Amino acid sequence: MTPQIPDLLVEPIVRMALAEDLGRAGDLTSQACVPEAARLSVSWTARRPGVLSGLSCARLALHALAPEARFETLVHDGDPVDPGQILARAEAPARAVLSAERTGLNLAGRLSGIATLTRAYVEAVAGTGAQITDTRKTTPGLRSLEKYAVRCGGGVNHRFGLDDAILIKDNHVAACGGVRPALERARVVAGHLVKVELEVDSLSQLAEALPLSPDVIMLDNFSLSDLREAVAMTAGRVTLEASGGVDLTTVRAIAETGVQVISVGALTHSSPSLDIGLDAV
Amino acid sequence: MTPQIPDLLVEPIVRMALAEDLGRAGDLTSQACVPEAARLSVSWTARRPGVLSGLSCARLALHALAPEARFETLVHDGDPVDPGQILARAEAPARAVLSAERTGLNLAGRLSGIATLTRAYVEAVAGTGAQITDTRKTTPGLRSLEKYAVRCGGGVNHRFGLDDAILIKDNHVAACGGVRPALERARVVAGHLVKVELEVDSLSQLAEALPLSPDVIMLDNFSLSDLREAVAMTAGRVTLEASGGVDLTTVRAIAETGVQVISVGALTHSSPSLDIGLDAV
Amino acid sequence: MTPQIPDLLVEPIVRMALAEDLGRAGDLTSQACVPEAARLSVSWTARRPGVLSGLSCARLALHALAPEARFETLVHDGDPVDPGQILARAEAPARAVLSAERTGLNLAGRLSGIATLTRAYVEAVAGTGAQITDTRKTTPGLRSLEKYAVRCGGGVNHRFGLDDAILIKDNHVAACGGVRPALERARVVAGHLVKVELEVDSLSQLAEALPLSPDVIMLDNFSLSDLREAVAMTAGRVTLEASGGVDLTTVRAIAETGVQVISVGALTHSSPSLDIGLDAV
Amino acid sequence: MTPQIPDLLVEPIVRMALAEDLGRAGDLTSQACVPEAARLSVSWTARRPGVLSGLSCARLALHALAPEARFETLVHDGDPVDPGQILARAEAPARAVLSAERTGLNLAGRLSGIATLTRAYVEAVAGTGAQITDTRKTTPGLRSLEKYAVRCGGGVNHRFGLDDAILIKDNHVAACGGVRPALERARVVAGHLVKVELEVDSLSQLAEALPLSPDVIMLDNFSLSDLREAVAMTAGRVTLEASGGVDLTTVRAIAETGVQVISVGALTHSSPSLDIGLDAV
Amino acid sequence: MTPQIPDLLVEPIVRMALAEDLGRAGDLTSQACVPEAARLSVSWTARRPGVLSGLSCARLALHALAPEARFETLVHDGDPVDPGQILARAEAPARAVLSAERTGLNLAGRLSGIATLTRAYVEAVAGTGAQITDTRKTTPGLRSLEKYAVRCGGGVNHRFGLDDAILIKDNHVAACGGVRPALERARVVAGHLVKVELEVDSLSQLAEALPLSPDVIMLDNFSLSDLREAVAMTAGRVTLEASGGVDLTTVRAIAETGVQVISVGALTHSSPSLDIGLDAV
Amino acid sequence: MTPQIPDLLVEPIVRMALAEDLGRAGDLTSQACVPEAARLSVSWTARRPGVLSGLSCARLALHALAPEARFETLVHDGDPVDPGQILARAEAPARAVLSAERTGLNLAGRLSGIATLTRAYVEAVAGTGAQITDTRKTTPGLRSLEKYAVRCGGGVNHRFGLDDAILIKDNHVAACGGVRPALERARVVAGHLVKVELEVDSLSQLAEALPLSPDVIMLDNFSLSDLREAVAMTAGRVTLEASGGVDLTTVRAIAETGVQVISVGALTHSSPSLDIGLDAV
Repeated sequence: MTPQIPDLLVEPIVRMALAEDLGRAGDLTSQACVPEAARLSVSWTARRPGVLSGLSCARLALHALAPEARFETLVHDGDPVDPGQILARAEAPARAVLSAERTGLNLAGRLSGIATLTRAYVEAVAGTGAQITDTRKTTPGLRSLEKYAVRCGGGVNHRFGLDDAILIKDNHVAACGGVRPALERARVVAGHLVKVELEVDSLSQLAEALPLSPDVIMLDNFSLSDLREAVAMTAGRVTLEASGGVDLTTVRAIAETGVQVISVGALTHSSPSLDIGLDAV
Repeated sequence: MTPQIPDLLVEPIVRMALAEDLGRAGDLTSQACVPEAARLSVSWTARRPGVLSGLSCARLALHALAPEARFETLVHDGDPVDPGQILARAEAPARAVLSAERTGLNLAGRLSGIATLTRAYVEAVAGTGAQITDTRKTTPGLRSLEKYAVRCGGGVNHRFGLDDAILIKDNHVAACGGVRPALERARVVAGHLVKVELEVDSLSQLAEALPLSPDVIMLDNFSLSDLREAVAMTAGRVTLEASGGVDLTTVRAIAETGVQVISVGALTHSSPSLDIGLDAV
Repeated sequence: MTPQIPDLLVEPIVRMALAEDLGRAGDLTSQACVPEAARLSVSWTARRPGVLSGLSCARLALHALAPEARFETLVHDGDPVDPGQILARAEAPARAVLSAERTGLNLAGRLSGIATLTRAYVEAVAGTGAQITDTRKTTPGLRSLEKYAVRCGGGVNHRFGLDDAILIKDNHVAACGGVRPALERARVVAGHLVKVELEVDSLSQLAEALPLSPDVIMLDNFSLSDLREAVAMTAGRVTLEASGGVDLTTVRAIAETGVQVISVGALTHSSPSLDIGLDAV
Repeated sequence: MTPQIPDLLVEPIVRMALAEDLGRAGDLTSQACVPEAARLSVSWTARRPGVLSGLSCARLALHALAPEARFETLVHDGDPVDPGQILARAEAPARAVLSAERTGLNLAGRLSGIATLTRAYVEAVAGTGAQITDTRKTTPGLRSLEKYAVRCGGGVNHRFGLDDAILIKDNHVAACGGVRPALERARVVAGHLVKVELEVDSLSQLAEALPLSPDVIMLDNFSLSDLREAVAMTAGRVTLEASGGVDLTTVRAIAETGVQVISVGALTHSSPSLDIGLDAV
Repeated sequence: MTPQIPDLLVEPIVRMALAEDLGRAGDLTSQACVPEAARLSVSWTARRPGVLSGLSCARLALHALAPEARFETLVHDGDPVDPGQILARAEAPARAVLSAERTGLNLAGRLSGIATLTRAYVEAVAGTGAQITDTRKTTPGLRSLEKYAVRCGGGVNHRFGLDDAILIKDNHVAACGGVRPALERARVVAGHLVKVELEVDSLSQLAEALPLSPDVIMLDNFSLSDLREAVAMTAGRVTLEASGGVDLTTVRAIAETGVQVISVGALTHSSPSLDIGLDAV
Repeated sequence: MTPQIPDLLVEPIVRMALAEDLGRAGDLTSQACVPEAARLSVSWTARRPGVLSGLSCARLALHALAPEARFETLVHDGDPVDPGQILARAEAPARAVLSAERTGLNLAGRLSGIATLTRAYVEAVAGTGAQITDTRKTTPGLRSLEKYAVRCGGGVNHRFGLDDAILIKDNHVAACGGVRPALERARVVAGHLVKVELEVDSLSQLAEALPLSPDVIMLDNFSLSDLREAVAMTAGRVTLEASGGVDLTTVRAIAETGVQVISVGALTHSSPSLDIGLDAV
């Protein structure tokens, strides 16, 4: 199933970004140098290999300035792209194309960068059964889009905020007086449609937690041998998520321990943008 | 002069980010596991070396949830930080601290990452007289903050949007029918307080542009030898900005050609976050 | 654990409501008839029995117009209240008190009405082990507050929106070509922290669904005998939610069939406001 | 004259409600289970008898997600509807239909519920000449729509906020030092296009007020005999509004006393939603 | 009674104006040239004679940038001011004072300009009993403030928008098929708290309208002799408002015809700002 | 090159203004008196001579209420208009035309008033080579539009805010300890695309400033003879801007001193609206 994000969620962000870029006087250069009647045919092209995400941002930015612009999508979000591959084409008033260019590229480049890095992690664990997931370390205001980009890359989403799942960490356990009371109180608040995850730091904490049956246990900064031991101890009764110290050189070994999910903060907080360019035809 | 950004510009972004994270039910975990009356003393600590930027985001996030919280700043934006160095301390209701934690760290981490990468470029060209500048390749909605982070790192800001300087690129020249008409029309629109920059792709374009006296000429993707030749041809009459193909391995050689400014898109589109942690005291 | 909702989520709604009420000229009557220096001591009093929810709305409305107002909370959200019982007291400029009165009462009355009706359902099923839950039939713009009010009444929350749990209904099954493919595709999209619920209309659909192990099965408009049969068939392997045709005369019998959760749309779409009054002391 | 509310006032509310429901990930279930290309033909049907109001909310919600959707209105706001009667039909992408369904129904159901209850009051006083009016006891953020629904039901609107009419109550009189100074100061502030209403609690207050000629006098919680006496005393010189203790069992008798207007808070604060359903064709 | 406008309505406008002025980089000059710790004592001084309005804008602008600033109001809105008269004093961080200066002056100058011009009209008709009123020809986004300034000048407000009174003009009469049906339909829509005004162009239209008893009749562009005739014909049964061709040279004669209200569009659409300055002490 | 402002910047202002005018009940008069199906053909006509600016506001206001309206532009922004000249024509639902009328006229009248006054100044200095520029004395929320109107009148824009150029005034010099340190610090903050302007009060300050080469020097309240002396001393090395005491009777003499730029606050803070009318055809 192709990932999808409704225009209704994307368009306000695109318009805000355009307004931020146009500032108080609009695009001075286009006003000065481009005749109002001039039209331009352009194409968006990948400059580097990667995975596409957020192409609708380029479309929505152009349509925000020129509702009558023609825009043709050639590649779908989630598809791999090669350097030189044309992603989309448009024909529109030249001023609109040039004024909207950077806004569309900033968003599509950032989201494609996230999708590209996610895909690298997903491919690194191919065949192990492990899933790659994200974190809440996203750009303020762009969480919806960045988590969508993770899905485009083949990852699954961790919780979207503080309100759609419970994740009990050390400070919560301390405030609650132990793992057992923390989980019991979480169950009361959670209701029947909210999952409860517990973070543990050691095998002994895991042993304490297992009989209490949280939906997910996060193994934080476990060594590979401890991860293997944790998988053995758990025997499939609870979903295990490995977290901490994950990069492209370590992720395969972590996946091979048998954990079901691996969370990677770098997907959203440290992925370089994918280089996409706009060329006049 | 220490860089500065008014709280008035930062606070709406922090509140938007908090609302994005709290969602529709608030922080379920803290509601479940942390007593309403519990208080917490915490410190923000750098986990990696870098340059601090955006610490006010952590302060404003905490105060948004607990106006009466005590917050003490120990390091100033723009200062270098070492791993383990304590950046700030706070004492506040535990629920507020834990609910605001991620929002503050996401912003401060991102901005400090930008400042850190900028500082690396600034130090790489130390002594050459060249300045490091940014681009419009920023995160939608965060341009004010990210450009501020560049200043924290020791860089100078390129234009903030399409409206505060004119930058004539190839498509504008083509639409205008040449460099001369483009510059003449730009002068008319620009007024007496707006600078005009012209992008050129070759030494021959530079030769055509120099007699027309734009305020700045951007040398796009010039080889080192062409940059040297451009500096010689210009003889200080116009500010020269090198652009394209700049990374930490090439920037010193570029600076040594004698250009006054070097623009680096990666400062904002591809800088990894600086790892900052929150610890209970 | 007392339910809680952060002021950060409530205050924007209160300010919007105040602005809606003040319109373009402010409170004409207070401007005309109340001296600027006059002060007023008031108390909020329940006129009918019920369960309190949303008292912070009255406090935030008053503080929005008079930051220096003194406000004392005497009853906590979630507590039962009797007619004549004083809920809170305040001393503030008279104009602010009178201008903020209706906004605070509208919100607190509505939320307390929801909490009161929820409590009636909760008490009707006392001892059966069944939980009362809400639906997405909430007032546009007030979902956070209305679901909070359900918690104040002792209910648990169903999903907060289309994005924090999957609920497969007949149209989805039809579009997907059957219950099995629908559940399989849901599992792929859901990730490890999102629950999947399936709505069934008959015992035969239930029999088809049970081996596929959704997290929750909604029994839509089942007769009491079918509910009993469903509980027996399920034998605790999946959480069962009864839905449809629930009112205060039927809910006890439904609970006694053994279902774990009963959802009641009327909690939010048809609860009368609780009558709360503001009296000058 | 059919009541009307411009889309410009309704659309922002519909879009806010959609965004509230879609949250940060959009409609997970439709993304998982409904193919992007699938289309759906649906009809909106009344499940109970009532009066329609707010059908444009369903239309605007669908068009917000699918601008190209076809939507056909079959019944007009203000019309009575029977159980099973089809109100509108649409043909659109299935995902858009299913994602927009609840938002449209929540608004149309609530507004139709208000119109239905208003119509019941209007019919209860038929032939007496009394008008039914609303109060400011509306849902925060929805006052425009809810007062429109009252008009759909055949009622007239009381003031829309604190700023479009003056309503002097006991606290204002007390702050002003009497009914006479209160009315005099109100006249000064009011200008020539703002009406002044005075609330009185007794026949003696009415006697004091009549020579001062407010535009309207509100008789608060008067007995039927006092209402009759008030009508006789006033002899048509001032519009009389009865308020307090009004329900469907008492309103006819109140109307027969000869008061011109009867205000009913329950119209907006306690009306149950009208049950409207969406069915695939 | 001193006019008043709640900070709740003013502050969002002040903050929007500050954000507009600070743009994306803040106040570059203050950042460059004013030490962060520097403080400044300043006073606001009238440079020309006039009537003060909107001084709270200066206070709110300063407090938005420096919540701890000390601000002392010396003159009240509605008071006449002389050149050189000190209106307020403040002591605050120098950067905040200088960054907020223009926003506060722009608003206070504009509003005081309106109050000053209004006062000139009010004084020109002194003793005639005529009131000066405004129109809807206000600055978009500032209607609340500009109508408040009219009150500060001693005028009364005409309607605040299209929704708080009915004003039937020639196009409405034409669409309705005559004055009588237009007034009858207006009465149905208006309810008991909305006034109905009718615009007439001639004495014959006035004669047609008088028996229909609108609350107010606007005499549009009547000659002085026709105004006198209109007053005589009306004999006090309906409030008469003169409109059109009103300036400071004609307003006295118009008032002396006996009309009760004179509307002046220039109060808000063409009043020059009052010159107010900020001086360092 | 015709001035231009993108609809993206204008439309939010137009919609905000419409919402301000429609209030909470919409246009009562049109609802009452104009049949829903009635259509109207209208034209916008200049009532006075002037320069057009902001005609798109009328178009966008109409389209906001009636997307299908036909609107034909007959005169372009920046063109001179004569009394009686038709500026645009439209055909649309009558209710939409009448409800949108005032919003469009308020904006177009204000902007055309600014353009008209600017043109008067521009023509007054014709042939001298001096340019007319504006200030930051604009209407809060409308700076983009009002500065656009100045361009329509033939003026050039001064800085748009505190952030796109540096303007060092007396308070900044005092805080910095002199003109030299102020300019040096400004250069550091400014970067290569931001101009630095210095305000001087006397010839001796000018003499001190000239060797420091700011981009622009503002001569504040200089006499004509001092302006002439300043031009002679500067000899073209720096752009000179005259400021203060400029009106239509003095501007020609100021221009003839040889200054390049003359700033006029009255363009935006005190220009009367141009009278434009809407007539049914």
